[in-house]
Amino acid sequence: MRRIRMIVEYDGTAYSGWQRQANAVSVQEKLEEALRKLTGEKELFVVGASRTDAGVHAFSQNVHFDTNCRIPADKFAYALPALLPEDIRVRASFRVRDDFHARFHAKRKQYRYVFYNSPHASAMYRNLSAHVMYPLDEEAMNREVKSMIGTHDFAPFAASGSEVKDTTRTIYSAGVKRDGDFVVLTVEGNGFLYNMVRILAGTLIHVGCGKLEKGAIARALTSMSRLDLGVTAPARGLTLMRIDYENGDAVEDVL
Amino acid sequence: MRRIRMIVEYDGTAYSGWQRQANAVSVQEKLEEALRKLTGEKELFVVGASRTDAGVHAFSQNVHFDTNCRIPADKFAYALPALLPEDIRVRASFRVRDDFHARFHAKRKQYRYVFYNSPHASAMYRNLSAHVMYPLDEEAMNREVKSMIGTHDFAPFAASGSEVKDTTRTIYSAGVKRDGDFVVLTVEGNGFLYNMVRILAGTLIHVGCGKLEKGAIARALTSMSRLDLGVTAPARGLTLMRIDYENGDAVEDVL
Repeated sequence: MRRIRMIVEYDGTAYSGWQRQANAVSVQEKLEEALRKLTGEKELFVVGASRTDAGVHAFSQNVHFDTNCRIPADKFAYALPALLPEDIRVRASFRVRDDFHARFHAKRKQYRYVFYNSPHASAMYRNLSAHVMYPLDEEAMNREVKSMIGTHDFAPFAASGSEVKDTTRTIYSAGVKRDGDFVVLTVEGNGFLYNMVRILAGTLIHVGCGKLEKGAIARALTSMSRLDLGVTAPARGLTLMRIDYENGDAVEDVL
Repeated sequence: MRRIRMIVEYDGTAYSGWQRQANAVSVQEKLEEALRKLTGEKELFVVGASRTDAGVHAFSQNVHFDTNCRIPADKFAYALPALLPEDIRVRASFRVRDDFHARFHAKRKQYRYVFYNSPHASAMYRNLSAHVMYPLDEEAMNREVKSMIGTHDFAPFAASGSEVKDTTRTIYSAGVKRDGDFVVLTVEGNGFLYNMVRILAGTLIHVGCGKLEKGAIARALTSMSRLDLGVTAPARGLTLMRIDYENGDAVEDVL
């Protein structure tokens, strides 16, 4: 048995999200189907680091699976594309330690949220950005997001219905930059609550167009109230950009 | 009668191209359908500046049409989106002089071609870029493309079957830049032959990965032979970015 780690990119537009579910097409299902075809192993299961929602994209989802097949680890990235739809690609594959776990051992994650800020919506980038028609003040948004940095109880940022008990997380960096009509939020932390980045993005939209007074994030972290924050921004603007691990490096791929 | 000019953005992935044709879905058809619904005018026809091919995108296609309806010219851009699919948007609409012609009066056009240069194809940008797996030398490509600048007979850059007689065009600027995994060609001229930018892009791929010796463009402009150039690069990498006119400005919209 070897444990293989893969870095997977997908356009989430056509999927019900990462996680396999009945009566809906998930990225996990497509990936497992392709791996089962390739290896001939019917009981092959893939564990993903992040259970991204419907419409959310990943530039670097990280996954692991176990296999007894004889395919060299680095060859999965070259063999899988032919078995996958064009909106799911494998950027890298390599063997890792048998105790590596894509979800539990993730140390640091980076997310990006892209706003398309123009009076008219984008045709070309409609699935990769969220349209905001009101002019956004990206400098006000950048100042606002700095309140996220540090270790806080982010309970007001958790979508209702979330089952997590410990809502304390550490945010290492957060910033907002404009590039023409695109306004881009980048945030890095040791973990994120369900919908946390989308609630942050929605809050920044409201602060950026003056619907919400600046200081909203600091107020919410004191009041612990979801009501101090903005809407949950649409899934299509969100991309999982990177995941770092401590013991996730490649090991020798002895077959 | 008023003549209206519109600036139209589209993701060309799902279309057979700009131009209306039997048994295929075109951008022109979708736009005419929406305008006919909006105005109630069954004989409304749209003239587009560029007959972009299947899979080619436009950030700024320019069109004109005539109407007797009472809708203020600037309101078309706000009313049409609800009648159009999400991959066609209208960025602006305004009244122009009655003798404005979107195709014949175009003075200057800018095209962009995006290469995704990585060992593995992109899932997220698959429809907005052309995948090149071999490492591209963007500086060599940038030096090469400078040979396009000026007034030349670009006959070797015209796809066979093209009906144009005068193949002389003026290129005002051309350049290649890298932005991470993206390598971006930008070219501006007074007009382009059919497939000219895609043949240029294919030639630059071959120069950029060493398949074709540098100086290919200069050689082709002397030999007048298509054989001195590279392949025709895929449609998906190409976007019509901008069109300039001399007398295309808005005029007072008296109803």
